[in-house]
Amino acid sequence: MKTPASRKESEDLDARDPLRGLRDYFELPDGIIYLDGNSLGPPPKEALTRLAKAAQEEWGNGLIGSWNDAGWIKLPESCGAKIAKLIGAENDEVIVADSVTVNLFKLAAALNEKRKGSIAVEKDEFPTDGYIAGGLSRLTETCLVKIQGDDPSALAGNDISVFVKSVVHYKTAAIADIAAWENEAQKNNVAIIWDLSHAAGVIELDLKKSGAKYAVGCGYKFLNGGPGAPAFLYVDRNVVNDLNQPLTGWMGHASPFDFSGNYHPAPGIRRFSCGTPQILSLSALDGALELFQNIDMGKVEEKARGLGDLFLSRAKAMGLSSVSPAAGERRGAHVGLSFEHGYEVVQALIARGIIGDFRAPDLMRFGFSPFYLRYADVWDAADQLEDILKTEAYRDPAFAVRKHVT
Amino acid sequence: MKTPASRKESEDLDARDPLRGLRDYFELPDGIIYLDGNSLGPPPKEALTRLAKAAQEEWGNGLIGSWNDAGWIKLPESCGAKIAKLIGAENDEVIVADSVTVNLFKLAAALNEKRKGSIAVEKDEFPTDGYIAGGLSRLTETCLVKIQGDDPSALAGNDISVFVKSVVHYKTAAIADIAAWENEAQKNNVAIIWDLSHAAGVIELDLKKSGAKYAVGCGYKFLNGGPGAPAFLYVDRNVVNDLNQPLTGWMGHASPFDFSGNYHPAPGIRRFSCGTPQILSLSALDGALELFQNIDMGKVEEKARGLGDLFLSRAKAMGLSSVSPAAGERRGAHVGLSFEHGYEVVQALIARGIIGDFRAPDLMRFGFSPFYLRYADVWDAADQLEDILKTEAYRDPAFAVRKHVT
Repeated sequence: MKTPASRKESEDLDARDPLRGLRDYFELPDGIIYLDGNSLGPPPKEALTRLAKAAQEEWGNGLIGSWNDAGWIKLPESCGAKIAKLIGAENDEVIVADSVTVNLFKLAAALNEKRKGSIAVEKDEFPTDGYIAGGLSRLTETCLVKIQGDDPSALAGNDISVFVKSVVHYKTAAIADIAAWENEAQKNNVAIIWDLSHAAGVIELDLKKSGAKYAVGCGYKFLNGGPGAPAFLYVDRNVVNDLNQPLTGWMGHASPFDFSGNYHPAPGIRRFSCGTPQILSLSALDGALELFQNIDMGKVEEKARGLGDLFLSRAKAMGLSSVSPAAGERRGAHVGLSFEHGYEVVQALIARGIIGDFRAPDLMRFGFSPFYLRYADVWDAADQLEDILKTEAYRDPAFAVRKHVT
Repeated sequence: MKTPASRKESEDLDARDPLRGLRDYFELPDGIIYLDGNSLGPPPKEALTRLAKAAQEEWGNGLIGSWNDAGWIKLPESCGAKIAKLIGAENDEVIVADSVTVNLFKLAAALNEKRKGSIAVEKDEFPTDGYIAGGLSRLTETCLVKIQGDDPSALAGNDISVFVKSVVHYKTAAIADIAAWENEAQKNNVAIIWDLSHAAGVIELDLKKSGAKYAVGCGYKFLNGGPGAPAFLYVDRNVVNDLNQPLTGWMGHASPFDFSGNYHPAPGIRRFSCGTPQILSLSALDGALELFQNIDMGKVEEKARGLGDLFLSRAKAMGLSSVSPAAGERRGAHVGLSFEHGYEVVQALIARGIIGDFRAPDLMRFGFSPFYLRYADVWDAADQLEDILKTEAYRDPAFAVRKHVT
């Protein structure tokens, strides 16, 4: 696909876009170009409808009976099955539960119990992944190793048992070569936990084919499941029953309603459940996932890449330097541009209705969700960025006020 | 207060009930007497309003900006402050996060790291409390001890470091003497984690005064926060900074948005946060808690006791045997009646719009939330129970079909 060189060419691409109808599935505020779906996706209409139903009808009218009658009790698994389709897993291999952080802990602890060794994370991994590996390492008096994330041979030595790595890097959006890492992992008897947070829902994944056995991921980014939506966890069905995770709550019990004094893990992926799931948040995610049910993920990835290519070509012309791979096939659905006054530029863009985010120390991050963004939107956003840089509008002191944005 | 001996006397009590106006704060389906608020509270209108606002306005319009603009980032603490009032804690001593199960793990792990010893739970504790203590004990190769829950002297010996105990027992509703246990705990250098799941919102608690330093509790029972609502965690502010919990996610970091490679726990209760909170579910809970803001918990406890006394006096007249303390001051807001055909009786009651629940092997459980129940409701429920027993209506085979109810 040729990167458009004008607004007209962008509009032409939009007119031919096979995914153009998906924008209508979303509630989007007027006057906004939202380039932050990599941080928090906007609400699909079906997520809001499903949430209202869960609250009013299921909770309000069905009350306690909704655990059975509305299928709440099966929601972690049925919602997991919807995600399984997007990542190349079987329906019974994914469960929705807790947060990415908690799921990483469960999986890393279970794997390291089975085969004791060092726990490793990528040096520049999303910090929470490193923090939780550190927490587990301290609790179990296990070594923690930080390794370079660009070369699978780093898995050799150090007696690594478990390695945590993102498929799409949270800053650069570089896509990892899963098969190459798994190949090296097999040689060294390492279990890799793939963090799909910035990958699920936006690049084509075939975990099984790539040899990936373990993964976690986020519900609130490109899956559009709502703020802090519950996370998911994948384990290959051939090995799941060998794993015993330590957060043994009643929902992971084989027979939770027997109220037995002894813990017997459920067979299959449900053993990675823990406490009672937060049904309202889970219902919104479940609704959001409807969008994906009849979608060609190849087309999704292709459009995300096209939008990113367009933005990067404009940014390059502005003299901005990118930390993201230039080659679209090696890049997820966001791009990172480093710039000394990045924080202020992002604030100036927000003031103009172009919403991206910022990651310390100097990274402007822009996400290109192919579900609701048009090439013309990306063109217009780039126009505004260009204007802000040219006019130095970002030097307005109002844009220097620091806020927390997740 | 005299227990009413007729429907008329029940109605008279209702007319004089200082809490009678609170029923209007709830969405309750018609034709239902809901005796299961101990398992899942019904929706307060404010919970539904708050949830709709969080979804439509905050997520839909505010998008990522709502982490600051709508106060999402502070919600775990601001919501915790509302709960603090109900349990006799300071505003900055409670945080809302994760599930009871996960919170128990965090707290028990942190305490046992500080002072190594055996982890103990009450023998007949709610199973998930025992499961999670078992999970931690296996992971950290620490002894697990199950002790009798009726005598604080059981804390002596066994080198117990941490003991988990409910304030109100999930089956019997027996109220623990917190001060007596804490007194014994101090002698033996034991940290008690109080599980407030069946106590918070319905009995008057003064944790600080009773000497309790650590607690967890549930958001979806008498706090009416919605199905699977997030849980809470309390730590005395004088000791919180001595504790390091192992689920070190970015939300517990002192400066999460610095994206530092090293974990530094936040000062205060926020160090017990972990991953990104599920904002939709959290918002519903936050709305539900509004109900409690100007309430006299003494009056709440008194009415819960009165409703329970009425039901128990009727049950006694039917020849049913109670596992709950007869003395109201030693009993929480639910009662347990054991009966061979308990499961079928509960199903027969549900078919008549009287909703209680059942706990294996033979326990019928009925909860008496003083917020929306009237004495006349309890009288009518008892009438139906009496009729079902007399006519043996529970023998209808339709009532023997087993379902899961949480």
